[in-house]
Amino acid sequence: MGQCNCRKKRKDCQELTDVERAIETVISQFHCYAVKGQKEYLTPNEMQELLVQKLPHLGKCVGPLEEKIECMGDPNEAKLEFGEYWDMMGDAAKGCRRK
Amino acid sequence: MGQCNCRKKRKDCQELTDVERAIETVISQFHCYAVKGQKEYLTPNEMQELLVQKLPHLGKCVGPLEEKIECMGDPNEAKLEFGEYWDMMGDAAKGCRRK
Repeated sequence: MGQCNCRKKRKDCQELTDVERAIETVISQFHCYAVKGQKEYLTPNEMQELLVQKLPHLGKCVGPLEEKIECMGDPNEAKLEFGEYWDMMGDAAKGCRRK
Repeated sequence: MGQCNCRKKRKDCQELTDVERAIETVISQFHCYAVKGQKEYLTPNEMQELLVQKLPHLGKCVGPLEEKIECMGDPNEAKLEFGEYWDMMGDAAKGCRRK
């Protein structure tokens, strides 16, 4: 997948703190993938693609990625919602902190 | 609490993607608060302070903050670990997406 520059703009984006901007950056990646086909989820294959492309370093902290993806159901059919995406980012963050 | 500029430096920080840098920014806020006293947790009071200061906009999406903080145990004694912090950030992110 190519570079996605879409990003939800907020009226008050200039007032956001650095942490808020960071959270919006993480949200926007889900949004970039999920809006293909106007859907509100990622398939396991899309989740894997996103992690490999966007988390080339921190993604290694998630643990064995293939195993996790396999547990998420049919690679092209299962619907992973935002909460599951956020949890996966959290796994990367936790793994990163332990290093 | 004043401005905290501490941030874990990574050798390969220049290679990090925008999402990875965003995740590290979110991690660093927990780290800034938690390192006071070399601890690896926040108290509910510290969590509240962090949310009010660092998420003045997105924090409103979390829902009734006082209620959530009250459920976390003794305001000055309970130990909230990184996973609980990440979940709280996720609540803000989810609330933000719904708006």
